[in-house]
Amino acid sequence: MFPKNAWYVACTPDEIADKPLGRTICGEKIVFYRPAPDQVAALDDFCPHRGAPLSLGTVCEGHLQCGYHGLRVECTGKSVSMPGQRVQGFPKARSFPVVERYGFIWVWPGDAAQADPATIHHLPWANNPEWAYGGGLYHIACDYRLMIDNLMDLTHETYVHSTSIGQKEIDEVPCKTRVEGDEVITSRFMEGIEAPPFWKMALRMNGLPDDQPVDRWQICHFTPPSHVLIEVGVALAGNGGYDAPADKKASSIVVDFITPETETSIHYFWGMARNFKPQDPSLTTQIREGQGNIFAEDQDMLEQQQQNLLRYPDRKLLMLNIDAGGVQSRKILDRIIAAEQAAAAPPAVAA
Amino acid sequence: MFPKNAWYVACTPDEIADKPLGRTICGEKIVFYRPAPDQVAALDDFCPHRGAPLSLGTVCEGHLQCGYHGLRVECTGKSVSMPGQRVQGFPKARSFPVVERYGFIWVWPGDAAQADPATIHHLPWANNPEWAYGGGLYHIACDYRLMIDNLMDLTHETYVHSTSIGQKEIDEVPCKTRVEGDEVITSRFMEGIEAPPFWKMALRMNGLPDDQPVDRWQICHFTPPSHVLIEVGVALAGNGGYDAPADKKASSIVVDFITPETETSIHYFWGMARNFKPQDPSLTTQIREGQGNIFAEDQDMLEQQQQNLLRYPDRKLLMLNIDAGGVQSRKILDRIIAAEQAAAAPPAVAA
Amino acid sequence: MFPKNAWYVACTPDEIADKPLGRTICGEKIVFYRPAPDQVAALDDFCPHRGAPLSLGTVCEGHLQCGYHGLRVECTGKSVSMPGQRVQGFPKARSFPVVERYGFIWVWPGDAAQADPATIHHLPWANNPEWAYGGGLYHIACDYRLMIDNLMDLTHETYVHSTSIGQKEIDEVPCKTRVEGDEVITSRFMEGIEAPPFWKMALRMNGLPDDQPVDRWQICHFTPPSHVLIEVGVALAGNGGYDAPADKKASSIVVDFITPETETSIHYFWGMARNFKPQDPSLTTQIREGQGNIFAEDQDMLEQQQQNLLRYPDRKLLMLNIDAGGVQSRKILDRIIAAEQAAAAPPAVAA
Repeated sequence: MFPKNAWYVACTPDEIADKPLGRTICGEKIVFYRPAPDQVAALDDFCPHRGAPLSLGTVCEGHLQCGYHGLRVECTGKSVSMPGQRVQGFPKARSFPVVERYGFIWVWPGDAAQADPATIHHLPWANNPEWAYGGGLYHIACDYRLMIDNLMDLTHETYVHSTSIGQKEIDEVPCKTRVEGDEVITSRFMEGIEAPPFWKMALRMNGLPDDQPVDRWQICHFTPPSHVLIEVGVALAGNGGYDAPADKKASSIVVDFITPETETSIHYFWGMARNFKPQDPSLTTQIREGQGNIFAEDQDMLEQQQQNLLRYPDRKLLMLNIDAGGVQSRKILDRIIAAEQAAAAPPAVAA
Repeated sequence: MFPKNAWYVACTPDEIADKPLGRTICGEKIVFYRPAPDQVAALDDFCPHRGAPLSLGTVCEGHLQCGYHGLRVECTGKSVSMPGQRVQGFPKARSFPVVERYGFIWVWPGDAAQADPATIHHLPWANNPEWAYGGGLYHIACDYRLMIDNLMDLTHETYVHSTSIGQKEIDEVPCKTRVEGDEVITSRFMEGIEAPPFWKMALRMNGLPDDQPVDRWQICHFTPPSHVLIEVGVALAGNGGYDAPADKKASSIVVDFITPETETSIHYFWGMARNFKPQDPSLTTQIREGQGNIFAEDQDMLEQQQQNLLRYPDRKLLMLNIDAGGVQSRKILDRIIAAEQAAAAPPAVAA
Repeated sequence: MFPKNAWYVACTPDEIADKPLGRTICGEKIVFYRPAPDQVAALDDFCPHRGAPLSLGTVCEGHLQCGYHGLRVECTGKSVSMPGQRVQGFPKARSFPVVERYGFIWVWPGDAAQADPATIHHLPWANNPEWAYGGGLYHIACDYRLMIDNLMDLTHETYVHSTSIGQKEIDEVPCKTRVEGDEVITSRFMEGIEAPPFWKMALRMNGLPDDQPVDRWQICHFTPPSHVLIEVGVALAGNGGYDAPADKKASSIVVDFITPETETSIHYFWGMARNFKPQDPSLTTQIREGQGNIFAEDQDMLEQQQQNLLRYPDRKLLMLNIDAGGVQSRKILDRIIAAEQAAAAPPAVAA
């Protein structure tokens, strides 16, 4: 169960640079392509002629040409030509609202009439020269909500990522969860600790000493349908922590766009936006590789957890304080999904 | 859905040269083997003793010996011996009518009483020293009818095989489809065009110039259950095309025997019979390799098309003039299948 | 269908030497680990917190620590600690009776109240310096009863293992099957034959000539739930065969513990216990490798037989005299399984 009337990250621009991309989003099999260098289109990946996948086709003169028999469709899904055929009466391929923004291609897999690009999650750091972004994509065989749980409860870093970003203090310091409208915020503040290796590096990059106690923070923000953006950082101890002046701290944003493929699989777009040394592409590469290795450690755990839950569908899971972020996020999702279903259901007949 | 009372190509002789072959044909799991060098037999691939696959056995003294405990069956499926056992009362393994002819092993997966070897599709070029044949076998995960569609509509060559045998003229010249009894014929004649590379080679092999305009033809013949034989060729322009005298043209026959394995998978026997340079085995090898590469290009398209159709079983496909060959072939198949089912159904009780 | 209230071999000690092991036994997904060097524990492989697999965790201070968020459970399945949490009210993970004995880890996947370690199958040769043991583990996709059939009817050696331990005499000499309580014994005695290569080697190792006729025996013992121990050996002919004095014979025990994973897959622990040259580890290695190669020959046959039986569930199999060992073993299993089910069923209501 996932909201359909929402903007999801479908892919990154490099994935559609040379040819169409077939990808299933929230159960919809979609082809993404560029009708023109600055445009993007998303259609049902099913040729109206004989059901061939349009994603095996090519873009010709701004239209998507089926790779089987040459039917061309425009970005609305309307057939525009086919050799030797009149195409006026051909059924339209379904088109999906799709927008390129912030370095991602966003798609709306639900009711197109409700799609408003203004509601795409705002990323203030994107397209900002003071920030740099690097990230990647993993395919993971789990319910998207298990990944939300994972990211809203960072105590798992101590165990799953014990050799990299984990540290005992994460586990020892309680987190707090609050809900603000449709947003869930889980935050943890650790004071006077030793910075772990990543943050020592970041301190040095900011011209700060790396051998002094720091205050560290992790502020996880869930917003529907499945975005988790995590403010992370350290400040030299005693300068106000999260609120310390810029010249006393180093920080970044862990970016997680979790796009359901099916009920039990996701396209997981992960990355990091940083506002230190933004003009250093080798640092971007270095961070991306490190983050990629760390985030890969979650895959086996999530997939086996998913298999366990499928095996025992009736078992109740615990909801501890550390789980509050995931629990509250699911409540919001349940409400949104129920509203979608109610709107889609036929009206009850009056007596 | 496929006809069961029909002759299908099961394998080629080299596949049973050394040992039995297990292969599923129209849903029947069958073991093929040679009781003697010039004989072929086909039995249910299930040992009457304990259900072991007979295809893991060996041929001993003309009988198929189960590789598990040594039960021997003869080609009728009757048990003939087993160490220390009396086998008279053993159940018979089902035997299937099977014939070696034209360089193929043909099997009848349906009612044996109706199997008449005289109805095996006649291949006039086989066993003819003026012709040479080369071919191969692909396993493809699609309904056999999708492959019939593919072969009865060669406009796909322009797209799927754009870098090899496709040419724009195929797409531009309309085809015609006619039905003659249980045969469907779709033909296309292109006049005054440049020969594509394969046909330039064939012209040279026939001692003809390769730099002159040609008339090219493609005449696809479907016959039940799932044979598609395609007459293809070129003649120097202005000599009557298909009807040109032999010294003005080069031609061959594309051979396609499509044997259903299951409802959604096939054994696809493809090849080419040619009547130029028949004594040149290196040319046979060269053509087979080229054809193998080209026909491999269809696999991904057909398998993804099949997945699309399984995903959306209720979507209606278009039936354009280019699809007429496949559409008419399916009508014949539908009729044959319905007749088989009616014959198999219990008679209605009179009032 | 398999007995649940029984001791099965779960793994060997080396499999849990460094970290927990997740393994499904009789449909139960279980984690095995060592709380202390000389202890073994078996728990449901499902963390009470969020369903993560405990087998991805680590052993810390004698407790199994979940690798996701650090919940620690003790060997009873009771939660003992979790950072920042009170765990008293946490649900218990199910624990399974588990015993290390004879070089194996034995588990009882059924009702723990009925588990009595005294009923673990006694292996008189284990922990006996006059004997040596070597073995391995195969995963095979078949019903455990097909493997029992296989081992209780060694005529298959003549066919499946024709190039190694098979010999025609096995097939020619009738076997006898008798039932003693819950034990089934199938025996075959071959007199005055040539020893096959393995036994020639064994004779030499015992200081006996290898070029003289021998009496050979195979005595297969099935005991529930699925143990098959086979006494095998040869004696110089005319010395009483199986009952010959120790200085006239060579013998060993083929060990087969067949642990159901699912209804159609097994963990197959195979090995050989020998009482000649027990102090020669290179001989143990040599025998294990030879036996491993031979036993691997059964896998394809068993898996394809299983597929055949699933395909044709209604076909009756033959029950010949050679099958009596398997048939009688199944009768005992049927009785045990029926008794388990009767005990588990709610009592009938009196009228």
